[in-house]
Amino acid sequence: MNLVIVGCGAAGATAAQFARKNDRKAEIKIFEKGKYPEYSKCALPLVISGELSPESVIEFDEEWFEKSNIELHLNTEVSSIDFDRRVVTTPDSEEKYDSLIIATGASPFSPVKPGGRTYFLRSLDDAVAIRKEAERSRKAVVVGAGLIGLEVAEALVKIGIDVTVLEFMPDLLLTMVDRDVARIVRERIGNDVEMLFGHRVTEIKEGERMEVAAVDGEGREVTIKCDFVIVAAGNRANAGIAGNLSSDGRAIDVNERCETSVENVYAVGDCTRYRDILGNDIQVGLGSVAVRQGIVAGTNAVGGNRTMPPLVNARTTKIFGIEIAAAGPLNMEHMLTGKFNGSTLPEYMGGEEIFIKVHADKKGRILGAQAVGPGAAQRIDRFSLAINTGLTLEQFMDAETSYAPVVAPVIDASYIACEIAGRRIR
Amino acid sequence: MNLVIVGCGAAGATAAQFARKNDRKAEIKIFEKGKYPEYSKCALPLVISGELSPESVIEFDEEWFEKSNIELHLNTEVSSIDFDRRVVTTPDSEEKYDSLIIATGASPFSPVKPGGRTYFLRSLDDAVAIRKEAERSRKAVVVGAGLIGLEVAEALVKIGIDVTVLEFMPDLLLTMVDRDVARIVRERIGNDVEMLFGHRVTEIKEGERMEVAAVDGEGREVTIKCDFVIVAAGNRANAGIAGNLSSDGRAIDVNERCETSVENVYAVGDCTRYRDILGNDIQVGLGSVAVRQGIVAGTNAVGGNRTMPPLVNARTTKIFGIEIAAAGPLNMEHMLTGKFNGSTLPEYMGGEEIFIKVHADKKGRILGAQAVGPGAAQRIDRFSLAINTGLTLEQFMDAETSYAPVVAPVIDASYIACEIAGRRIR
Repeated sequence: MNLVIVGCGAAGATAAQFARKNDRKAEIKIFEKGKYPEYSKCALPLVISGELSPESVIEFDEEWFEKSNIELHLNTEVSSIDFDRRVVTTPDSEEKYDSLIIATGASPFSPVKPGGRTYFLRSLDDAVAIRKEAERSRKAVVVGAGLIGLEVAEALVKIGIDVTVLEFMPDLLLTMVDRDVARIVRERIGNDVEMLFGHRVTEIKEGERMEVAAVDGEGREVTIKCDFVIVAAGNRANAGIAGNLSSDGRAIDVNERCETSVENVYAVGDCTRYRDILGNDIQVGLGSVAVRQGIVAGTNAVGGNRTMPPLVNARTTKIFGIEIAAAGPLNMEHMLTGKFNGSTLPEYMGGEEIFIKVHADKKGRILGAQAVGPGAAQRIDRFSLAINTGLTLEQFMDAETSYAPVVAPVIDASYIACEIAGRRIR
Repeated sequence: MNLVIVGCGAAGATAAQFARKNDRKAEIKIFEKGKYPEYSKCALPLVISGELSPESVIEFDEEWFEKSNIELHLNTEVSSIDFDRRVVTTPDSEEKYDSLIIATGASPFSPVKPGGRTYFLRSLDDAVAIRKEAERSRKAVVVGAGLIGLEVAEALVKIGIDVTVLEFMPDLLLTMVDRDVARIVRERIGNDVEMLFGHRVTEIKEGERMEVAAVDGEGREVTIKCDFVIVAAGNRANAGIAGNLSSDGRAIDVNERCETSVENVYAVGDCTRYRDILGNDIQVGLGSVAVRQGIVAGTNAVGGNRTMPPLVNARTTKIFGIEIAAAGPLNMEHMLTGKFNGSTLPEYMGGEEIFIKVHADKKGRILGAQAVGPGAAQRIDRFSLAINTGLTLEQFMDAETSYAPVVAPVIDASYIACEIAGRRIR
């Protein structure tokens, strides 16, 4: 059994790991165009802030691959795949495969031509370069107030850089949470960083000092001078090599076994598209999903049988001290909705604010939840389980939660949000 | 509609609250033998340590009852109930009812005659008295290393009292967690408090200095001198007034609607016994369950229809800085078992240790879980939901969890514990 894996990010490396776990004899080869083995992309903002060293974020190092008897080829870009002959072509060789896993990731997208000292944050080298640039700079513009944009903005603020964030959308994190939830996050962040919303960047001008020009919804122009620019405006799947495995050229379509339309060819991670709980095909973009796909594809590629449920996209971040988490699709205001701002502890203990929003369909089946405050991620993980298994608001509320004055209130904010959402049923 | 409630603890007061929510016109009366309206019994150790004032733990005060148009009679003990005539007798009156809710709680039990300066911790007055005694003392013996015993021991240590805990069982918290989990807790607590296990208390001697005598499994005697003693050896349900509503005189049997064997008579909280997920009838002993029963009984007593699932007993505490939580029955080593000691964060972030143990039946259906470490309670709440809705290890593992380096690892310790437990199925 020959397994070839293209790309050694979280998805590819995890696939290799699980292929090895399930087949001790398979010949496994990974080809990675970059110079590092698998590292945590989500940790890159902490490399910029200096909280982590570049080396420390490597999770599967070369020694691990050697010990696991997996052939790792770094600096080796696969140039083409022949699905009929089952052959992968690299600059050095033609590799015959029985099973193939495509894990080519995604690349950053820029709304305008990125000139001069403009950076993206996708690779470890990017993080190191930004860190170096920041050490000799005082002012940066970050284009994009999504998860990566804000995590980078925070990292830069931590090391003393004056940051302005420009965002095209009317608020922050709008691919992660609904607008009303975004507003809560923004209010809690306060003035730690300057953010301009509804501003479309029109030009990034090179020069001794750089200039970022943007225009708001009413056509007013602003120009911000800075030492360097970070563009964090989203990613595009690297689906090119997969040819017609993609229905529209934008991402590789996979099913619950991470299979593509070609037999024995799997795809995992940011280069793929998979269905969500509403039945919509959506771009995969979370490291956690990439790892879960890696587990599934790695197991199946060597003859196992593992599936994954539709995407819930359980997601979290912590920016400027605020923990935010969400699961399920956005903008479901036409569904049953419950919102509640409670406390992490009983009233007499004080505690900290925890905001919960939940959505359910007309029958009360939970479809999504969003949370802001300490413990947001754990609460969302509980909702994720409920969504995944089709539980109703009532079943969620019926389940006991543990209580002690110094740990948790008798009735959690999650429960009350569900009760509010359920009022429209009863 | 006349509703009479006997007892104004968490269960009784919550029943009153939900009866009022569901019926704005019902005449609701509560009779409470003590002098306070509803307060948090679980917060009493914090009154001993001085972290909370006695007044602050009152959750439903007299004003709340007045506003809610609920007649509250303090210092009024119900002496008998005539189920045929539907009449409750108090020293002042005979009260006719259409629906009755019994919420008489439980009373502390002592394995030996409690002499001299021996205290129990059940009421707010108990906490105030212990606080006062502690202020003039240096040494205390706590009998019982269960949840209340240890919370009291910690409270006393915090205010500078030298404490020895004597426990009959071979380890601490053995009604909350399994013995292997208890050992982990004990090791993490370290030497903050002296604890002697396997010691049966034989006598509590009064005197200028008190003496507690105990004997270990091999008959060796120890005598510990101290200024005062706290007995925290468990509670017995106050089921006497309910007469033959109890099958064995020990607790009042209730069903999923909190109904007793007599029509229109409900019982809630520590005076009751209800079935758990294995079908065993067990004593109710958690404030959180009492509140949930209060919601159910209060709703049903005025004509509503609410039920509760079998007991999972989701429970938590935090002692000496260690968060501990569990759900489901104990001692299920004959079932599928998975244990894992992981971290609250990805490896490169460090994080803190989180231990998870999970039990499932032969088909993989999750029956119980125990956890030690930060976030233990939230993780147990997720397991509680899984237990309650009959989910399998695989369904639990399939559900996404949210990941960010500063918040949570890609794969949580809970997942790995489930994977280990599931190996015996696959």
